[in-house]
Amino acid sequence: MYPLPLQKLIELFGKLPGIGPRQAARFAFFVLKGKDAYVQELIASLEEVSSKIKTCAQCYRTVEDTGTGQILCAFCKDTRRDHAMLAIVEKEADMQNLEKTGAFRGLYHILGGVISPLDQDSPRRLHLRQLHERIKGLLASGDAAFEVVLATSSTTEGDTTALYIEQILAPLRTAHPQLKISRLGRGLSLGSELEYADEITLRNALTNRR
Amino acid sequence: MYPLPLQKLIELFGKLPGIGPRQAARFAFFVLKGKDAYVQELIASLEEVSSKIKTCAQCYRTVEDTGTGQILCAFCKDTRRDHAMLAIVEKEADMQNLEKTGAFRGLYHILGGVISPLDQDSPRRLHLRQLHERIKGLLASGDAAFEVVLATSSTTEGDTTALYIEQILAPLRTAHPQLKISRLGRGLSLGSELEYADEITLRNALTNRR
Amino acid sequence: MYPLPLQKLIELFGKLPGIGPRQAARFAFFVLKGKDAYVQELIASLEEVSSKIKTCAQCYRTVEDTGTGQILCAFCKDTRRDHAMLAIVEKEADMQNLEKTGAFRGLYHILGGVISPLDQDSPRRLHLRQLHERIKGLLASGDAAFEVVLATSSTTEGDTTALYIEQILAPLRTAHPQLKISRLGRGLSLGSELEYADEITLRNALTNRR
Amino acid sequence: MYPLPLQKLIELFGKLPGIGPRQAARFAFFVLKGKDAYVQELIASLEEVSSKIKTCAQCYRTVEDTGTGQILCAFCKDTRRDHAMLAIVEKEADMQNLEKTGAFRGLYHILGGVISPLDQDSPRRLHLRQLHERIKGLLASGDAAFEVVLATSSTTEGDTTALYIEQILAPLRTAHPQLKISRLGRGLSLGSELEYADEITLRNALTNRR
Repeated sequence: MYPLPLQKLIELFGKLPGIGPRQAARFAFFVLKGKDAYVQELIASLEEVSSKIKTCAQCYRTVEDTGTGQILCAFCKDTRRDHAMLAIVEKEADMQNLEKTGAFRGLYHILGGVISPLDQDSPRRLHLRQLHERIKGLLASGDAAFEVVLATSSTTEGDTTALYIEQILAPLRTAHPQLKISRLGRGLSLGSELEYADEITLRNALTNRR
Repeated sequence: MYPLPLQKLIELFGKLPGIGPRQAARFAFFVLKGKDAYVQELIASLEEVSSKIKTCAQCYRTVEDTGTGQILCAFCKDTRRDHAMLAIVEKEADMQNLEKTGAFRGLYHILGGVISPLDQDSPRRLHLRQLHERIKGLLASGDAAFEVVLATSSTTEGDTTALYIEQILAPLRTAHPQLKISRLGRGLSLGSELEYADEITLRNALTNRR
Repeated sequence: MYPLPLQKLIELFGKLPGIGPRQAARFAFFVLKGKDAYVQELIASLEEVSSKIKTCAQCYRTVEDTGTGQILCAFCKDTRRDHAMLAIVEKEADMQNLEKTGAFRGLYHILGGVISPLDQDSPRRLHLRQLHERIKGLLASGDAAFEVVLATSSTTEGDTTALYIEQILAPLRTAHPQLKISRLGRGLSLGSELEYADEITLRNALTNRR
Repeated sequence: MYPLPLQKLIELFGKLPGIGPRQAARFAFFVLKGKDAYVQELIASLEEVSSKIKTCAQCYRTVEDTGTGQILCAFCKDTRRDHAMLAIVEKEADMQNLEKTGAFRGLYHILGGVISPLDQDSPRRLHLRQLHERIKGLLASGDAAFEVVLATSSTTEGDTTALYIEQILAPLRTAHPQLKISRLGRGLSLGSELEYADEITLRNALTNRR
């Protein structure tokens, strides 16, 4: 219905997460309307992101590649952060949300996704082997207490992922008693009303009462 | 617009919680349609509830008055339940929801509402004096451990109510070290995604990790 | 879980249109809370509605029965209204909504429901025979122009009902050329955006352009 | 919080209609994840749209510029379409939606927006002068009947725009009686229930009954 090049752009916009064909068309017309300004800026930005954004060699957070060899993010290089705590998160946005609380001062490991019980290949797509190596290396360096916080979502995928990691780390834990593995607390979230809370949340809230 | 008696019924239905004038009118026409059957049943039921439903003298749960003097509910009379634990809830529906988990086997105290920071009279409408008396009586009878679980909602009103009760019980706690006061655990509720969790919930989830 | 009389009331409230078990329980506790005042008023109102509200012998609108024989509603008795126009509506609330516009000054006929394509008995539950008699009587009294406005909803049921009535009235129309049958206009309703309008609505809007 | 080039991309995505910062970030990470494939395709597509997509010299619909001089879209060149009917629409998506009905076979004029009562400059941003010239030219060529269909949305802006165009065309109409100006029909849209219809829609439905 639209000219082919426009049709193609609508199709590409339609691949963005959560975008249907109608909104993709709105994006395309938005691009057309502000032609010379917006579209050139967007192309330049996409090119810059494509060439300059890399991920931290240790935690897989995005970093700008300044061409100086080995890439470590600001957190991993920051000696004031607590290097004896490691929060494992699904994606960078989760890390950003945890940072907003100011309540966690350790390091992170970004998995790059979750394990889906229906997708046998999903574990291979995550940075799990690297996680194991990283923790093994840390434990080898001494007997100091070290805590891994499994900061996955309270969803089926998040729980499956946390369980899987616990199994991967089980041998390390046996060999290194200084390794502690914890999960984020479960219970009533802000605004939860007792009358409408689900059974599992209420059970957690009772068990974790304090 | 409608005949006066109908108008009056619509008005009364409109006082039910969450019901606007349009739905109240639908109720009234529903009543009219099934006239002889539904309306007579409803009248009889309202009369029976009005005359026979009382509240438990100890926990304020609803009970049917069978005319045999002092009224205690089935939970309060049940010696197999744990009489050394007392969950304080806002309303009976909250108690029912906790019961569904099967994870709490103690007794209850139904406050009959919440304390609103904007309504200075709200504490007086709750069964707080009776709560104090009840706990005082229980503590007087011995040194056995006794736990009060503040099972209020994770809302401003719920938190205000819990705080208020903690203050009321503070002197008892000083005098009776066997009294333990706890609150339901806070953290991620079922289905919470880290990316969308609010700051307070995340902070609780970090603090209460285990 | 609740005492039997309360359980029964919750069940009855749960039969009200659009009310699930949880909201029904809230209604029951609302009734209990304001016991002596609200419940007695509600019982009295239900009894009054049950005994005093009848429907107009001509149009089936609700009227208060004052015990003076044949019951006609204020509209049917009002000689200033246009007795040569008759709007056929599904239910009294639709009539009230039409009245609000001030744009219709004729009489009404309330069907008491709609014809469902899936429920063969549904036509029998409506005041259709009475509608036929009423129009027949009116046409017998002279050759003056007379218009029937099929004011049913723009839904499958509403359209089925309108079609059914057109078929019922077809013989009268053949015999009495002064009978005009119309339907409410179709097209863009207030706030409709062209981009989001459905195909049938757009087609109607094009056909009915003016 | 993110590296600057990524931050910039999130910002640009956040300018797309209906996109907030959180979804913009999801877009950016989606782009990063499929790096070499998706991002290169998107850049190429944006460049092609930027260089090749022009608008029809007559109706302002998008067309692909094939470098052969004057650009007319397929509709404007199609002699089988009815050149004596002109639908005036706010934007191309509205035209596409009208086309889906198959009920309109005339030509279009895309305004490129609406007139906002709060934005005095908005008329200048629309193709209104060109519309006037186009209709004037068509009327000059003969006395054949010609209809302009104001196919704007049933919103405040859509109505304001239609009214404004009627005023612009008023002198042409006086001079050329063969010019007919119509608006899309108003009334019940598909699925409208009488009980919930707004007053203006009901009034239109009564006036436009047929």
